[in-house]
Amino acid sequence: MKFGRISRESPDGPIARLVVVEPEKGRVIDLARAAALHAKATFHAGDAAAVRLAQAQFPGSMAQALANGSNLVDAARTVIEGRFGDEASLPIGDVTWLPASDPPVLRDGLTFIGHIKGWHERMGRDVPESMLLIPGFTKNSASTVIGHDAVVPWPGYITEKMDYELELGYVIGRRGSSVRPEEALDYVFGITLYNDFSGRGLQHNELPIGMGSTKSKDFAHAIGPWITTLDEFEDLDAISMEVRVNGETWGKGNSGGKLWTVAELVAYVSLGEIIEPGDVIGSGTMGGGSALELGRQLEPGDVVELEADNIGVLRTTMGQKEEGLWWPTPRQPFM
Amino acid sequence: MKFGRISRESPDGPIARLVVVEPEKGRVIDLARAAALHAKATFHAGDAAAVRLAQAQFPGSMAQALANGSNLVDAARTVIEGRFGDEASLPIGDVTWLPASDPPVLRDGLTFIGHIKGWHERMGRDVPESMLLIPGFTKNSASTVIGHDAVVPWPGYITEKMDYELELGYVIGRRGSSVRPEEALDYVFGITLYNDFSGRGLQHNELPIGMGSTKSKDFAHAIGPWITTLDEFEDLDAISMEVRVNGETWGKGNSGGKLWTVAELVAYVSLGEIIEPGDVIGSGTMGGGSALELGRQLEPGDVVELEADNIGVLRTTMGQKEEGLWWPTPRQPFM
Repeated sequence: MKFGRISRESPDGPIARLVVVEPEKGRVIDLARAAALHAKATFHAGDAAAVRLAQAQFPGSMAQALANGSNLVDAARTVIEGRFGDEASLPIGDVTWLPASDPPVLRDGLTFIGHIKGWHERMGRDVPESMLLIPGFTKNSASTVIGHDAVVPWPGYITEKMDYELELGYVIGRRGSSVRPEEALDYVFGITLYNDFSGRGLQHNELPIGMGSTKSKDFAHAIGPWITTLDEFEDLDAISMEVRVNGETWGKGNSGGKLWTVAELVAYVSLGEIIEPGDVIGSGTMGGGSALELGRQLEPGDVVELEADNIGVLRTTMGQKEEGLWWPTPRQPFM
Repeated sequence: MKFGRISRESPDGPIARLVVVEPEKGRVIDLARAAALHAKATFHAGDAAAVRLAQAQFPGSMAQALANGSNLVDAARTVIEGRFGDEASLPIGDVTWLPASDPPVLRDGLTFIGHIKGWHERMGRDVPESMLLIPGFTKNSASTVIGHDAVVPWPGYITEKMDYELELGYVIGRRGSSVRPEEALDYVFGITLYNDFSGRGLQHNELPIGMGSTKSKDFAHAIGPWITTLDEFEDLDAISMEVRVNGETWGKGNSGGKLWTVAELVAYVSLGEIIEPGDVIGSGTMGGGSALELGRQLEPGDVVELEADNIGVLRTTMGQKEEGLWWPTPRQPFM
């Protein structure tokens, strides 16, 4: 089953709505609307009560909807069955997409051996031994998530080597802490696509500080187009993936060749802290899944499409550079 | 004015309540309670309506309360005036403290020259030139924030060199993006204390990966005891600070000697992303504000107190090591 988020007009302005996505039928189903229709017909709920119950069960926040518990799929299936699903459906081509999740925390792993090799060769760095000891991951800013069909903000301080990263996003469906690998996949609700845009020049300056990437990555994180539930994937190491720029294939491969399994990555992320419903954990970039590895870069106006089997296409357009932003003045050495 | 969060019993279990803290009067004032009393007496609101309005205005989440807008201080002053404040007050010694904020995003800067020097000397590393070009900061996990008087979780994989970090926490009061330094302080609601506990052995392994600290820091972030509004500080570079372990002073200094001003740090953090009400940005560790700089470390049961002028004391006790957690098996080299 596929779940997404769209924006709809309301008397309160645009609001987020949770939808079931049926690409094969060319439609999405507004879950709160279907649930209200269902509650009225089935439980004889009053009009206002039906809306209130439906919005509590299927809020526009994916994080809140998943936090309601493990029954999201069953509950959705019940309310969209038959005519309620039909009555609450919208043509898929007409909707405005929001990020597939609104993650409380957005993290990004580093699991594909091919990318680790390619990145270090291009950046002229050795692969540190630590990468063999513990799964690397970083925390990104969840405030700049964007969805399918969005324009990618391009702050003017990213002056060179603008890049995409072709990644899967593992969406957490259940609250947990210090989960073990053998149970970790029970905490994954589904998989989406994640484009972790990166300014490589600035990243090169940020790395030696040792605190992770900040401004080189946190201007935009594309998540979408929607989430496919985990049961629809036969093999997490054999998901075909591709990235196209302006229609031309720049990278193609699959989700195999991992240094750490999905279960190990999720388990490690959860160690001593809390993974929350709606959290997104990036797989890290697929081997060959960045322009850096090709010695290429993005330009304003470029259309970037990530595609993965069983998910779909996450398409975004690079915006124009925003000039006139403040930038810090270098300090004098003190040692 | 000082604002904090406490836990109170209710028929729904423990709930968070926003309080004004008056240490000099030995009391805290439950703001939602005072506001309900005030609404009944002043606006003739019904009992249930008064509670509903009061909870919307003063929710138990500091992030939500600050998101209500820039009038938190004035609104609080109005409802606690006179007998409503008295009637809604609780003895300060009897309350259970929660983290002073529930930050949507928890970041940590690196601004004190003394600590940068001391850390690099002890870790045997050169200060990278990048630190002179851009303000370093990292993103920490907000899921593991703890408050005053809490026991600090100690996962067993932190086997050595457990450390505290004496920091100020700048609490954001207003939503903003790409804020310039000259207006940045308007976005700071107040200052609290922040103890960024750190496992130095593990941190040493994490650093070469270049993605920031993860498990060496994200097991516990103490924030409290409460927030003092910015107007109560005369000089942000002259706040006295001290750290004590089991009553013995291990570090003492003040908030001077910064590589980047508070305004520059906040402005840089906000560049191209969003700072949200309730977000906490750590100042970075004060020079001499970590045990690492002394060649010392913490043990289970140690009581750590951070103190700062105009704020108070943030006291926590190191817990016992939690054993039996999963830990990843090293991988074979692939290059």
